[in-house]
Amino acid sequence: MDVALVREFQMSTTTDEHYLAQALSLAAANVENAGGPFGAVILTPDGSVFEGVNRVTANNDPTAHAEVMAIREACRSLGTFDLSGCVLYTSCEPCPMCLSGALWARVKHVVYAADRHDAARAGFDDAVFYEYFSTPLEERSMPVRQCRLSPSAEIGDCAPFEAWSALAARVDY
Amino acid sequence: MDVALVREFQMSTTTDEHYLAQALSLAAANVENAGGPFGAVILTPDGSVFEGVNRVTANNDPTAHAEVMAIREACRSLGTFDLSGCVLYTSCEPCPMCLSGALWARVKHVVYAADRHDAARAGFDDAVFYEYFSTPLEERSMPVRQCRLSPSAEIGDCAPFEAWSALAARVDY
Repeated sequence: MDVALVREFQMSTTTDEHYLAQALSLAAANVENAGGPFGAVILTPDGSVFEGVNRVTANNDPTAHAEVMAIREACRSLGTFDLSGCVLYTSCEPCPMCLSGALWARVKHVVYAADRHDAARAGFDDAVFYEYFSTPLEERSMPVRQCRLSPSAEIGDCAPFEAWSALAARVDY
Repeated sequence: MDVALVREFQMSTTTDEHYLAQALSLAAANVENAGGPFGAVILTPDGSVFEGVNRVTANNDPTAHAEVMAIREACRSLGTFDLSGCVLYTSCEPCPMCLSGALWARVKHVVYAADRHDAARAGFDDAVFYEYFSTPLEERSMPVRQCRLSPSAEIGDCAPFEAWSALAARVDY
């Protein structure tokens, strides 16, 4: 391995450890503030940092995971819905909701410290969430099904898409 | 099929069509209000109804899908993070973020009108999202990796969980 590569690897590891330590500190502090033990940080390409912590029970919002909160905060502050080039650091392995949220935000990659097994030992057994998408449709714990509206219904299944396609001023995303 | 079963099926279909029409109407109206063509409704076991529409570009929030917004609104209004027994009706097949959000909220089941193919024809080609979780880890478009902190780091990977486990007043979820 040449010296430049070794240096790049060491720098990247130092950066990772720095922002993971920040996410872990946020997570630990959040426990003392009526939140869950999870923290996350968004790092932009120009070095800006945005934070999030788990506020599910505090805010009565089951989607308020640390990663989602960090994504929302970064987007709100930057005035964009697109975090291309950003890195998401999180104190614990993200669940499928957070991974999908990061995908929608165009996050470049995700780095986490603790994993699902560490979380399970603390009582956060999210196996059903990790396994949901690999479970056959008909065996999933939460059934999901399509219901086509009858042709006589007051509105058609594709009416919103037709309105969208007809709109000149739409913001594509 | 006996008469009671036929009646139950007809009633359920009528209920589904009613709330799907509401979700579709919300979606169509949202297009005229700077939003994406998606709407959703949460129906509680006692018949209360909460609405959500896509505000991704309007709010600069990539997680503001209609389903997530309906879940957040229902939880906020009801003062809970638990929607056990509720049904989520949505104008279009939900993406993995919305399905996971519904799972976290303990939604009973999900019913949708248009599907991913209808959405793709309107320019919403979310195939990468649907396929993300069935793609092998090393081939995923957004890499996700673990970085364990070194033993000399200022905080340990499991410090937040240790704080959580030591907290008597925690709200488990």
